[in-house]
Amino acid sequence: MRNIALNPDEQLDDLQNGFWLVQSRKGFRFGIDAVLLADYADVRAGEHVIDLGCGNGIIPVLLAAHTGAASITGLEIQEASAALARKSVGYNELEGRVRIVTGDIREAAQTFGAASFDVVTSNPPYMIGQHGLTNAEDSIRIARHEVCCTLDDLAASAAKLLKSRGRFYMVHRPFRLAEIMRTLSRHHLEPKRMRLVHPYADREPNLVLIEAARGGRSGMRIDPPLVVYTSPGVYTDEILRIYRR
Amino acid sequence: MRNIALNPDEQLDDLQNGFWLVQSRKGFRFGIDAVLLADYADVRAGEHVIDLGCGNGIIPVLLAAHTGAASITGLEIQEASAALARKSVGYNELEGRVRIVTGDIREAAQTFGAASFDVVTSNPPYMIGQHGLTNAEDSIRIARHEVCCTLDDLAASAAKLLKSRGRFYMVHRPFRLAEIMRTLSRHHLEPKRMRLVHPYADREPNLVLIEAARGGRSGMRIDPPLVVYTSPGVYTDEILRIYRR
Repeated sequence: MRNIALNPDEQLDDLQNGFWLVQSRKGFRFGIDAVLLADYADVRAGEHVIDLGCGNGIIPVLLAAHTGAASITGLEIQEASAALARKSVGYNELEGRVRIVTGDIREAAQTFGAASFDVVTSNPPYMIGQHGLTNAEDSIRIARHEVCCTLDDLAASAAKLLKSRGRFYMVHRPFRLAEIMRTLSRHHLEPKRMRLVHPYADREPNLVLIEAARGGRSGMRIDPPLVVYTSPGVYTDEILRIYRR
Repeated sequence: MRNIALNPDEQLDDLQNGFWLVQSRKGFRFGIDAVLLADYADVRAGEHVIDLGCGNGIIPVLLAAHTGAASITGLEIQEASAALARKSVGYNELEGRVRIVTGDIREAAQTFGAASFDVVTSNPPYMIGQHGLTNAEDSIRIARHEVCCTLDDLAASAAKLLKSRGRFYMVHRPFRLAEIMRTLSRHHLEPKRMRLVHPYADREPNLVLIEAARGGRSGMRIDPPLVVYTSPGVYTDEILRIYRR
């Protein structure tokens, strides 16, 4: 790792797996959803991956740490977030495999070419119109609300970017599950696997992890529940394994 | 309860809640899926309910036992199964609230009239074409495979039979979840609630319970997992409560 110049608003966070992430103290900071998605995505050696809406680059950095992907592209519309992501790529000496591009998800297929990736990942904004409060801080607002990109925009872009039978991995909120299934299907992204994330074993899920295959056949697998806590503040063994992966 | 004449192939099974069911020893016998669906269906006092493909009548009898429904109609295409169901209705003295009709799900809206029910329930065949073995015994084959009625036929019929905002409850296999969501949506049955049934807490689900609302808005709730066994042969407390309801 190299020396790094941090602005007063920035800090360097230990990912507990030998890698580090530069984050803004006040802007959008990564959460468990990004960590779970990077773990759920089954990326094989030599594959080409793009993360749509990569924010501060947490998913590209984790995928570089976990997998033998040949290349990982992070696409982010907010220049300030993309700049943070580039700092992390540099600090972790990942320039050979990870590139961060500033740009719009809706134009990604023109930028990178159709059918040019084996895997697309995305931790998109969860909230539509009225759902949730709108945050005054722009980087947080754009990361949480469908300001720049709707679920339909995202699925359309992922479908174009993927090779035939390429895989799309997304984390989202369970309340939108029916809409997610419809939207993926509309763009010929067939849901193949799904896992619900429950804060406790006997609670409603608050996240859903989904794998879809471009042009896949109908028929899917639902994984066992992923439980986050055994008691308040105490992670389950599975979550500890995922964080330390 | 009354005296009852049973054929040599028939037996009277105790539902453990004060009600009884006549079942064929060799034909299709009810399983935990029907019991869970009858429990999941939220039927309110005074409502009119139809169970599509009622088989030996387990769901109509359980709904009559659990709920204050004004009327419960069981529709069954196989005359032998419908005859068994009528025996159970008689034995439990439910003729005032439960009627069993022999007929085809695909013609139900003509038979009963459009928008004539508050609630539709169904425990349909789970298997399509190649999935699962085809059983030589006809009543079992028709109950398990989409011989007489596809998922699309079922959703189309349910949508026609329901009043606006009426509720459709179905139990099915998780591997068909994406197709279920698409099919319900196509017929304007919006998924509103879903519960996955896991044999053990850390296993994949093998059943899914779904509530959809005719003409409902997008947005759903996913319930905590429903776990069947704590150890082999030992039901969880929740399953025991459902069986004894």
